[in-house]
Amino acid sequence: MTNSIFDQLTIKNDTKIVLLILDGIGGLKFPGKIGTELEAAFKPNLDSLAKDSVCGLFDPIFPGIIPGSGPAHFALFGYDPIRFSIGRGVLSAAGVEFDLTDQDLAARVNFCTVDDNGNVTDRRAGRIANEINEQLCEKIKQKIRIPDGYKFFMIPEKEHRAVLILRGPNLSDFISDTDSQQVGVPPLDPQATAKDAEKTVKIIKDLLGQIREILADENPANMILLRGFAKHRRYATLQERFKLRSLAIANYPMYRGVAKLVGMDLNPVTPDLSSQFEALKNRIADYDFFFLHVKYTDSRGEDGDFDGKVKVIEQVDKLIPRITRLNPDVFVVTGDHSTPAIFKNHSWHPVPVLLNSKTARVDLVEKFDEISCITGGLGRQPSLNLMGLCLAHAHRLVKYGA
Amino acid sequence: MTNSIFDQLTIKNDTKIVLLILDGIGGLKFPGKIGTELEAAFKPNLDSLAKDSVCGLFDPIFPGIIPGSGPAHFALFGYDPIRFSIGRGVLSAAGVEFDLTDQDLAARVNFCTVDDNGNVTDRRAGRIANEINEQLCEKIKQKIRIPDGYKFFMIPEKEHRAVLILRGPNLSDFISDTDSQQVGVPPLDPQATAKDAEKTVKIIKDLLGQIREILADENPANMILLRGFAKHRRYATLQERFKLRSLAIANYPMYRGVAKLVGMDLNPVTPDLSSQFEALKNRIADYDFFFLHVKYTDSRGEDGDFDGKVKVIEQVDKLIPRITRLNPDVFVVTGDHSTPAIFKNHSWHPVPVLLNSKTARVDLVEKFDEISCITGGLGRQPSLNLMGLCLAHAHRLVKYGA
Repeated sequence: MTNSIFDQLTIKNDTKIVLLILDGIGGLKFPGKIGTELEAAFKPNLDSLAKDSVCGLFDPIFPGIIPGSGPAHFALFGYDPIRFSIGRGVLSAAGVEFDLTDQDLAARVNFCTVDDNGNVTDRRAGRIANEINEQLCEKIKQKIRIPDGYKFFMIPEKEHRAVLILRGPNLSDFISDTDSQQVGVPPLDPQATAKDAEKTVKIIKDLLGQIREILADENPANMILLRGFAKHRRYATLQERFKLRSLAIANYPMYRGVAKLVGMDLNPVTPDLSSQFEALKNRIADYDFFFLHVKYTDSRGEDGDFDGKVKVIEQVDKLIPRITRLNPDVFVVTGDHSTPAIFKNHSWHPVPVLLNSKTARVDLVEKFDEISCITGGLGRQPSLNLMGLCLAHAHRLVKYGA
Repeated sequence: MTNSIFDQLTIKNDTKIVLLILDGIGGLKFPGKIGTELEAAFKPNLDSLAKDSVCGLFDPIFPGIIPGSGPAHFALFGYDPIRFSIGRGVLSAAGVEFDLTDQDLAARVNFCTVDDNGNVTDRRAGRIANEINEQLCEKIKQKIRIPDGYKFFMIPEKEHRAVLILRGPNLSDFISDTDSQQVGVPPLDPQATAKDAEKTVKIIKDLLGQIREILADENPANMILLRGFAKHRRYATLQERFKLRSLAIANYPMYRGVAKLVGMDLNPVTPDLSSQFEALKNRIADYDFFFLHVKYTDSRGEDGDFDGKVKVIEQVDKLIPRITRLNPDVFVVTGDHSTPAIFKNHSWHPVPVLLNSKTARVDLVEKFDEISCITGGLGRQPSLNLMGLCLAHAHRLVKYGA
């Protein structure tokens, strides 16, 4: 099944589409609590919106699949997350707003700790401070020797995370991770997973040997692990595919990165949730499609903090009128995936969705939560269908066939 | 996604399948009215049938897609509407019951009005009367000069609509429309959209030049617009695919045309709705599958006539016992797409469906409308799945695998 059929049918007009993503919004009942996080939250605005909308449940990738944030967002933006898989390295590079070229190979870096035998003892080097991370990246860049005709970049993210980028001719990304995801064993040697990757592997092995030397006296970050080797690939933009001028109002690097990969402009990072919602108002005239991303629902879920997640939902609920007041033609509230506090992690459970529009066939759902939305008019369908529905309700599609 | 798996599993038996299509049946709430057209209608027979059936919602093509009638019916008959796209020209030719050959190129004609500068002022030439249309087609046929080895047909449809067919060797349908869908600009030149179409384009351009001369003194229909160039393509019939002897009881050319494309026999056009339903009784012994098509639900929707659409639903409701009295093994009521009166046009909203059969797993739905059917046992699925369900409930399928 493909949704590329939409690419041929879109037209331009003046309608506004707002997509509010509450990251990891889907939940589960928690011991001693009433229902899920959404069921427990006091959220009169979201409930009243649901009553006036068509609701349902989205499967981010496929029933049973635990979604990463990259593919989950790709699906929401109308890009088949199986067909357009995004390498971790590319996602990280996009997250630090590094403009990859066709000659670039990117990999995600973890600074880690190894013992005297070379075995990994901490895959995150005790989550070193951002400043240490920056110093180590700088040290590596200054000391490393790169083969002629190549360029090397090492860009810090947060804590123990960084991005390594190698630029040069004929690099391949068919290379296995050096991160075994285990402690007590040495980092893996990178392996070529396709024949033409052998030359690239040789270069990477040499660089890793040098980095081991450069970091030898550091503590605790005395080595790096690499994963998600990926070459740059250009995606057709939302403008090209759907004629949408689009803006991402997102504060976290990874989500800014995914938005950038599909051609969205990025709103400057805002200091808090309130100013994030305010940004929408200030930019509403300039774009057609707005991706407003709230990270903290996911963060509190990952912390296992049920009450904290409820609180974020309640904060968001208070800000909903800032959006409805702008009268967007289509206003969708959903999540990229579930992060039940009881899991402290992403889960495969479907995500509630509400679509508010003058042309919505309003159903009988009275509340915005996982159970109420089961009987919504959207039924249960893949997140990938969302963009087509948005375009339809925004009257941006012509008829298919006669 | 494919449903061709069914083609290998079908067997013959004596069961009868009746598919009643209420064209454009899906609706939306209208200002000042209670609910949708189906919700507002008094339809005791359809509701009682729904109570005794399994119900649900169909997406004609894909959530968000606004379906044309051609692809929407193709899906209902079990033909993937994306894979088997039907050109407008072929659909029009089928609609006038013209038997296309492999050598034929068909295009849909609009008689139009152009001003002294050659700009289109009316794309429908004031919707000329059928008799004028017939006279103009005849005039063109008599005066036009066709290259050696080719044949030319010009067949009137209704009002300003006609079909142009060119028969000859090596014709291509990779040709762009001359109808720009706008007024105030001249008709477009036909363009080759593939290299081997250039010879065909040359012929078409010459014919258009001649037709401009032939119609020069006519008023208001002094030119034609062409769109949907399409070559004949043979589709496997319902008999070949599913072992079904099938009859279309449809009065409108386009629906007769689609039915013919998939190998249905055509019942003679009947004078009214009542005689249409009566035809089913008279032919029930001769076929396995019956496609009974009611056009007026769509027509009133396109007129923006909410009450008129309600009235057609109520008329159909009164005729339902004529079908149930025949005790078909499978009786399905649904639509090809939605045509909410408030839209005056097709829309992307899903369509309610009921499937009545001794083997239906009856659900809790009590009424046949868009909202009640949300919680039906069929859930929300593509129309394309219908034919497999019909075959199953008609005991016309063997087990898949051991």
